Amino acid sequence: MDIALLGGTGDIGEGLALRLAHGTDHAVRIGSREAAKAEAAAEEYRAELEGRGLDADLTGHENPGAAAGADAVVLAVPAYHLVDTVEAVADAVSGVLVTPAVGMQRDEDGFSYNRPGAGSVTALARGAAPDDVPVVGAFHNLPAGRLADLDATFDWDTVVVGDDADAKRTVMDIAEGIDGLRALDGGGLANAMEVEAITPLLINLARENDDLHDLGVRFE
Amino acid sequence: MDIALLGGTGDIGEGLALRLAHGTDHAVRIGSREAAKAEAAAEEYRAELEGRGLDADLTGHENPGAAAGADAVVLAVPAYHLVDTVEAVADAVSGVLVTPAVGMQRDEDGFSYNRPGAGSVTALARGAAPDDVPVVGAFHNLPAGRLADLDATFDWDTVVVGDDADAKRTVMDIAEGIDGLRALDGGGLANAMEVEAITPLLINLARENDDLHDLGVRFE
Repeated sequence: MDIALLGGTGDIGEGLALRLAHGTDHAVRIGSREAAKAEAAAEEYRAELEGRGLDADLTGHENPGAAAGADAVVLAVPAYHLVDTVEAVADAVSGVLVTPAVGMQRDEDGFSYNRPGAGSVTALARGAAPDDVPVVGAFHNLPAGRLADLDATFDWDTVVVGDDADAKRTVMDIAEGIDGLRALDGGGLANAMEVEAITPLLINLARENDDLHDLGVRFE
Repeated sequence: MDIALLGGTGDIGEGLALRLAHGTDHAVRIGSREAAKAEAAAEEYRAELEGRGLDADLTGHENPGAAAGADAVVLAVPAYHLVDTVEAVADAVSGVLVTPAVGMQRDEDGFSYNRPGAGSVTALARGAAPDDVPVVGAFHNLPAGRLADLDATFDWDTVVVGDDADAKRTVMDIAEGIDGLRALDGGGLANAMEVEAITPLLINLARENDDLHDLGVRFE
């Protein structure tokens, strides 16, 4: 599949790029607001994979160019850039829009979920996207550093939510292509908030428990 | 320790009673609004454990009698009975109040977290309890049926939140006494919402994925 990672130069984007671009037949397009930045990141990820003897089809583009014609377009951007980013690619996108973004705030107690008025960040993306483009929430609860470290193994779940069954299936298939990641169907887009809220909890658990860090989640 | 399980005749109460009353030196007091109901449940749980050759110190009481002098008082009641139950035992309780309750609602998309105005059900209990009684959130994400089935094994986490470090340590020690349960420090009581919100997600995952049922959670 052709997969665009908008904000693919950022931390979660790096992890998804490295994990999706090898051992699969995906062409991964790194998107950024600046083409040169995206191309540099794609080059860096290719070098990282080639250094391990892994072939990778990784290219860099401005966000709209990355999104155009891609089967899936992952919005790997901070929550506060989500709507901007959707609007910047709205005319170009024809595949599934995938949002892993979570809104968080931090105070003296640690991190907490910052629920948008729309109900969830996934719902915010749905509201900003063209009506005929399916929106799916996925890849929310993955620690970026460990995902991007190809020496790290894991046994994590990602919960996939959305109202379009075919689009959700496409994203679950992409997720299952990552070694150690199991995709679970979380139902409709209205169920996104409970998934997004796990991310600040993972950060709090790593802060409060000495022997835990870079946590994901497993349902069993 | 002396542990009171208010609402100990209900489903999560049954599981906690059976798991806490054997292989430990706890005295477990089942509480109910009706003493006779509590005594019948205690008798039933004792019979279940004795049938497996397990000794158990399990007795039944009206809620205030169960709470009086207990080291920990678990509010194993539905969220909509939480404040009533705290008020009914407020004069009797001197140990840690522990709340596993979660507010949920159900619609065509499945279950969702019903956040109280106080911020979390744990915060609601804090508001209703006497100021000098510590309140700790724990045991939120445990499927009742599997917890109460002593043939079932599991490898789950429970996240413990609260503002009193000693009270939190007491509850973590109680939780770690259950085989297969790991207690994690989730930080202050302000972090309770993200923990509570996992429960409706667990129910949705069991509804949407054929091979999953009675799910708990593990952070790794």
